[in-house]
Amino acid sequence: MIPTKFDWKKLQSFCTDVFKAAGVPVKSAEIVAESLVEADLRGVDSHGVVRTSIYLKRMEEGMIQPDSNFFTHSETDTMALLDGNNNFGSVVGMEALNKALDKAKKSGIGVVGVKNSNHFGTGAYYANKAIDQGFILLVLSNASQTMPPTGGVRPFLGTNPLAIGVPTGTDVPFILDMATSVVARGKIIVASQKGESIPEGWAIDKDGNPTTDANAALEGSVLPLGGPKGYGISMFIDILAGVLTGAGFGKYVNNMYENWEDPQNVGHFFLAININNFMPIDYFKERMDLYITDLKNEPKAPGVEEIYIPGELELRRTIERKENGIELPEKVVQELSEIGQKYGIDFTQAAYTTNISTEVSK
Amino acid sequence: MIPTKFDWKKLQSFCTDVFKAAGVPVKSAEIVAESLVEADLRGVDSHGVVRTSIYLKRMEEGMIQPDSNFFTHSETDTMALLDGNNNFGSVVGMEALNKALDKAKKSGIGVVGVKNSNHFGTGAYYANKAIDQGFILLVLSNASQTMPPTGGVRPFLGTNPLAIGVPTGTDVPFILDMATSVVARGKIIVASQKGESIPEGWAIDKDGNPTTDANAALEGSVLPLGGPKGYGISMFIDILAGVLTGAGFGKYVNNMYENWEDPQNVGHFFLAININNFMPIDYFKERMDLYITDLKNEPKAPGVEEIYIPGELELRRTIERKENGIELPEKVVQELSEIGQKYGIDFTQAAYTTNISTEVSK
Repeated sequence: MIPTKFDWKKLQSFCTDVFKAAGVPVKSAEIVAESLVEADLRGVDSHGVVRTSIYLKRMEEGMIQPDSNFFTHSETDTMALLDGNNNFGSVVGMEALNKALDKAKKSGIGVVGVKNSNHFGTGAYYANKAIDQGFILLVLSNASQTMPPTGGVRPFLGTNPLAIGVPTGTDVPFILDMATSVVARGKIIVASQKGESIPEGWAIDKDGNPTTDANAALEGSVLPLGGPKGYGISMFIDILAGVLTGAGFGKYVNNMYENWEDPQNVGHFFLAININNFMPIDYFKERMDLYITDLKNEPKAPGVEEIYIPGELELRRTIERKENGIELPEKVVQELSEIGQKYGIDFTQAAYTTNISTEVSK
Repeated sequence: MIPTKFDWKKLQSFCTDVFKAAGVPVKSAEIVAESLVEADLRGVDSHGVVRTSIYLKRMEEGMIQPDSNFFTHSETDTMALLDGNNNFGSVVGMEALNKALDKAKKSGIGVVGVKNSNHFGTGAYYANKAIDQGFILLVLSNASQTMPPTGGVRPFLGTNPLAIGVPTGTDVPFILDMATSVVARGKIIVASQKGESIPEGWAIDKDGNPTTDANAALEGSVLPLGGPKGYGISMFIDILAGVLTGAGFGKYVNNMYENWEDPQNVGHFFLAININNFMPIDYFKERMDLYITDLKNEPKAPGVEEIYIPGELELRRTIERKENGIELPEKVVQELSEIGQKYGIDFTQAAYTTNISTEVSK
């Protein structure tokens, strides 16, 4: 029987081994695998191991170059412009994050713009790492065309995500990680893969009509968050991550699934803030905790048991999935099994087994 | 007859004279007046000269201190933490902007956090000034409680605005200036003053019910933009502008209209980017112009004649109002007349007169 539930550590090892076997340097393979599995753990399945196959395919087609070197085009104590040289987006992203953190340690603020990168996974991945080191991180990325501008009918802007991570004094940091669309395009991809319909208001079809059909939506456009405001935010992210860095922007960011002639040329923008330059970090954390306590003590709307801060539900899901395994859709299991076979790595080894079932099977 | 239409330059002189007469230092009076009239010119009437009376009243009550000195608590080549010492928000804002630009000139990036400030007008005011000097500016401010968090029923967060200005190669820069609410609270104030109702979906009343009554909405809460995403963005702005700077945040930002015991303790966050550290500014402007041309060439939805970039309509309105005068509501005219009488400055002198009517009156 093919398993559908997987142990996160074993799944991560499997993905690491696959990328290594495909020719990705060890450190890079570890980053890409960690970034994918962390998305699954947080419940952002659209950015999880489901992307292993497209990443590998783009690598095989020469669109991602796993052993390319990065270049730094311009650099001061506080900023750098990094050329990702078509390496994996998350590998380039980690380089940018570390540069931004180094600069923030020195100058209080670190900004790194990135060009010639690829899809870099979730922004929360980098936000979590910055938080672990006690920094605030803002990370922006552009993406290929999926949303019309206000007044338009076809995809022009990406769902250009933004993520923000802020340390707190508790185990629950503030992590906002959102697409500038009403909903992440990845969620429509997942709905399509599962054969499910999507809620009204998420998207228009290719002729500009509202649709609840996930496939029609994928042929059409996801709508920006809140009309002109979301359109403006998405465009601003494209400007900082794309226009300013020398990466693609608007129609010059290539589609990961459709364009097999050119690298994606995705751009990113990382801003790291050293809290200690503003106030002692312990005092900052006290202020954050007071803020969150105030928030949680607010009266709740009917039917609401708790007010959550951004990232809180994702953290709970992470704890739950680390404990109880990650459920993967049949199609993804099938795909990963085939990839495993191709590289001689047994995917069933990554199956989740409870202590109880281990007992029983003994 | 009391005029209802005013010449922008004369209106600005009137406001400057009033603030000077009330004891505000000349340079500060000029900044505050310019900031208010510029909002009226752009069509953001809620942030225009309508605020003259509340600014004066807070000053008279000692909540705004027009001759206080700023302090810089912490400073590097790339960042500073500024204590506004309860001066006018726009005066403090201009100091922060200039500091951020100076640092960006030196280091590529300039960040200035601000505490102990007041309502600082529109973010677009600072964005325009940064653009004039060829810089990208991101400016955030927190505000007193008007929006519930997702799952809450009463105001907890401010409509915490964000503004972004980006230079282009044309006369039309990119200026996004938005509240993180579905709509700016100021627009509900204007509707209330005009005795108009508001559209559904803008706000809930104090018991959490949807309302179209502007007064009920002012007693209740404006809703965040796009649900949890807007809630998250608003909170993040509060964190950078408030928690990180030592300003108020959440319930500790005091209401300008209701709290007469304490200064507002508003916080701001300015991020200036020196484009030349990333690429020659002329090349950047070419890229922006290409982006905007691409956007404008997109197919339009039925009934749409043109796709606008953020700030474009506000610029057109500015040109139109500079040409044809600024129409003010009767209540505001009345208020400003009384203020003028108090300080011995004739408000009717600010009336708009066309060349034609000048001819006729000769």
